[in-house]
Amino acid sequence: MTETRYAEDVRLADLVARHDVGHLEQWLEQRPAYEIADEISRADQVTAGVCFRLLPKDRAVEVFGELDGNEQQKILSAVRDQSFRDIVEGMDPDDRARLLGEAPANFTQRVLAGLSARERELTAPLLGYDAGSVGRYMTPEMVRLKEQSTVGEALERVRREGAEAETVNTLPVTDAGRRLIGVVLLRDLVLADPQDPLTGLVDPAHPRAHAADTAESAARLMQEANLLDLPVVDSEDRIVGLLTIDDALEVIEAADTEDIARQSAASPLDGHYMSVGVVRVARSRVVWLLLLIIAATLTAKVLQAFEGELEEVTALAIFIPLLVGTGGNVGAQAATGAVRAIAVGEVRPGDVIRVVWRECRVGFLLGSMLGAVGLLFAWVMVDDSGIAVTVALTLVVVCAWAAVIGGAMPLFARKVGIDPAVISAPLVTTFVDATGLIIYFLIARAVLGL
Amino acid sequence: MTETRYAEDVRLADLVARHDVGHLEQWLEQRPAYEIADEISRADQVTAGVCFRLLPKDRAVEVFGELDGNEQQKILSAVRDQSFRDIVEGMDPDDRARLLGEAPANFTQRVLAGLSARERELTAPLLGYDAGSVGRYMTPEMVRLKEQSTVGEALERVRREGAEAETVNTLPVTDAGRRLIGVVLLRDLVLADPQDPLTGLVDPAHPRAHAADTAESAARLMQEANLLDLPVVDSEDRIVGLLTIDDALEVIEAADTEDIARQSAASPLDGHYMSVGVVRVARSRVVWLLLLIIAATLTAKVLQAFEGELEEVTALAIFIPLLVGTGGNVGAQAATGAVRAIAVGEVRPGDVIRVVWRECRVGFLLGSMLGAVGLLFAWVMVDDSGIAVTVALTLVVVCAWAAVIGGAMPLFARKVGIDPAVISAPLVTTFVDATGLIIYFLIARAVLGL
Repeated sequence: MTETRYAEDVRLADLVARHDVGHLEQWLEQRPAYEIADEISRADQVTAGVCFRLLPKDRAVEVFGELDGNEQQKILSAVRDQSFRDIVEGMDPDDRARLLGEAPANFTQRVLAGLSARERELTAPLLGYDAGSVGRYMTPEMVRLKEQSTVGEALERVRREGAEAETVNTLPVTDAGRRLIGVVLLRDLVLADPQDPLTGLVDPAHPRAHAADTAESAARLMQEANLLDLPVVDSEDRIVGLLTIDDALEVIEAADTEDIARQSAASPLDGHYMSVGVVRVARSRVVWLLLLIIAATLTAKVLQAFEGELEEVTALAIFIPLLVGTGGNVGAQAATGAVRAIAVGEVRPGDVIRVVWRECRVGFLLGSMLGAVGLLFAWVMVDDSGIAVTVALTLVVVCAWAAVIGGAMPLFARKVGIDPAVISAPLVTTFVDATGLIIYFLIARAVLGL
Repeated sequence: MTETRYAEDVRLADLVARHDVGHLEQWLEQRPAYEIADEISRADQVTAGVCFRLLPKDRAVEVFGELDGNEQQKILSAVRDQSFRDIVEGMDPDDRARLLGEAPANFTQRVLAGLSARERELTAPLLGYDAGSVGRYMTPEMVRLKEQSTVGEALERVRREGAEAETVNTLPVTDAGRRLIGVVLLRDLVLADPQDPLTGLVDPAHPRAHAADTAESAARLMQEANLLDLPVVDSEDRIVGLLTIDDALEVIEAADTEDIARQSAASPLDGHYMSVGVVRVARSRVVWLLLLIIAATLTAKVLQAFEGELEEVTALAIFIPLLVGTGGNVGAQAATGAVRAIAVGEVRPGDVIRVVWRECRVGFLLGSMLGAVGLLFAWVMVDDSGIAVTVALTLVVVCAWAAVIGGAMPLFARKVGIDPAVISAPLVTTFVDATGLIIYFLIARAVLGL
């Protein structure tokens, strides 16, 4: 018997070393919990960690319960360990996903407890939380209250455990199965009568986030609902941590900085503005510039197509930068406004028609005013009423067109699942440039009879 | 005697009705505090309020002390009153400024207490807090602790007064003269031994803001220092309120929305994106568009100056939108990055030289890559090596130039006291357009020997 066990132990370590996730899973499926617990106790730290993380959630809870304190500790520290991280990184994405399913709440909290913010960020992916998810930003260090306590007992618990917690302003209240019932605010606890039952203070409607939700949506929810802390639960509503407002603020600031960078068709810098190297800055900007210059060749194609008209009336060329520039500005304004409105939640994808109709009227209004200025100016400059009328009419049409495109593109992007912030002002501008030139020469043909 | 008094009372009400601030001040200067208190007691509410607000700060404290509870209440409610607001609005800006000097902390807090956020916003200007200052956003409803209490006494006070307070997470600690010594966090109070003196828990280095500071800088300070509440003091370091994180967040969101709108050369909308009317949207965008179209006439002037070259080589016109568009994109990226870096505090005005040198190298790098693409593309399109080289060289120079302008303009704006967010991408683009065209034709002359 000992022989077989030993062989199996060796085989497990072997399978882990070979990244043979399939066989490991098969092996784990066939064994009862106590036997897995036994094998895990005998295995080295990394093998134990990998096996444990491969267990389905409910079995993992069971196995964890079978282990004694030392062995639990072994698995906990395995997940924080560099060699475990190396194993995970060496796996195929598919296997990695199987290995890193959502971990049980109890386990998650104990793995993350006592780690610094930086260590938590490194460890959270190993617990199954994707980049940008709430799980990456939450703190597990909170004081959890039991629903059947009195206010006095709860306060006693805060006094006992509070020094270790990252925050005690918000206190999650759970049932016997760690499921979140609601939260109590420290303030209410302090103001209440110690003899009262805790349940009277619990707010069961307090918003919560799932660990797999995006951190940005959770942070914006906190901002809207004026929350200092947001309780984070797993898919079974078991509490795993709290997202505190200072972390939420960092998430929002980073998201805004990213949106703003995207608006100018650059990627956000992953560092301090003054210290990031020249090459990295250039790299953050070059991809879009290359795409845009390729798109801009469209403008050259359009002009080449109208070269006959250009040769006939060279004066038409004079107004090209003014027309495309103005169209671009109107489009950029509309796009920037729409992207921000989407980011702060004022526009929903279903609003496309309304936005288009509104922007069309706004653009027409703007175009009429700018057209009047353009008419006057072109007349003074080239002393040719035909060209002046062409410029003015083009401004009216291009402004309406640019506003519609600028307003609609971010909404369409959102609808097809692209981040609307990708619809940058330069992208809109480049698109409006090429189409605006076609409008210009078609109007010129009609007005000047070319 | 009663006769004279009555006459003076009438005269005061008269002076107030005539907005004769000069005579009122003169009258108040000559009287001792108890006499002013007496006159204020006899006067109608609005007259009393105006007289009181005209007193220098230290005399106001003295007079307030002389008044009995009812009379104090009269002045407090006068300042919240519509007719007082009307009086203030009817005054010359100079007189208004004299009337609305900073009010004593004690008085401020009592005027603002019990008002809704909306009412506070309406009333704060009458206490001398300018638009956009911390005084407009702070809450006066806090629990103030005395420095010589014990932890137990402090907790008792929180229990007694906490229900009325907007927040008790942060508790300002003051000396006998209401001067802020530091703050205690509710959390520390709960965790400490009730017998301990409070002073051990006070953080005297906790950041504070002055009521006249801009709300945005105070809010960003809270974000950086991870504070839930920021104590707000008057110019004599007396506590007047707390800025809570939820209000700070609104300030930051509004500032960011404004910056983003400005980046596209629009004013921020003062309403929900979906509900603001078409004319108001157009108005928020038209001012900059008009300025920019006037600036864009420069591009037409430049092209007119080079009309001879254009007539000789029409093919040069074909690349104009591509060149100015790419230059504009590079400039917009640099400007957007610099504006954001200034907003989040990563760049200081003294960094101009470093930013320029860095952007110059970034722009040169970008220009080299884009120039290579441009060379290839122009060659294929017009089959003329001279024009292709002209386009490529122009891209290199224009990109470096645009990056420098985009990076430097926000910093210069900041240096001369203009909001750097005004240096919008469209503004940079328009500037780069005109100068880029000059660069283009100068290079064309040299390369093509025109």
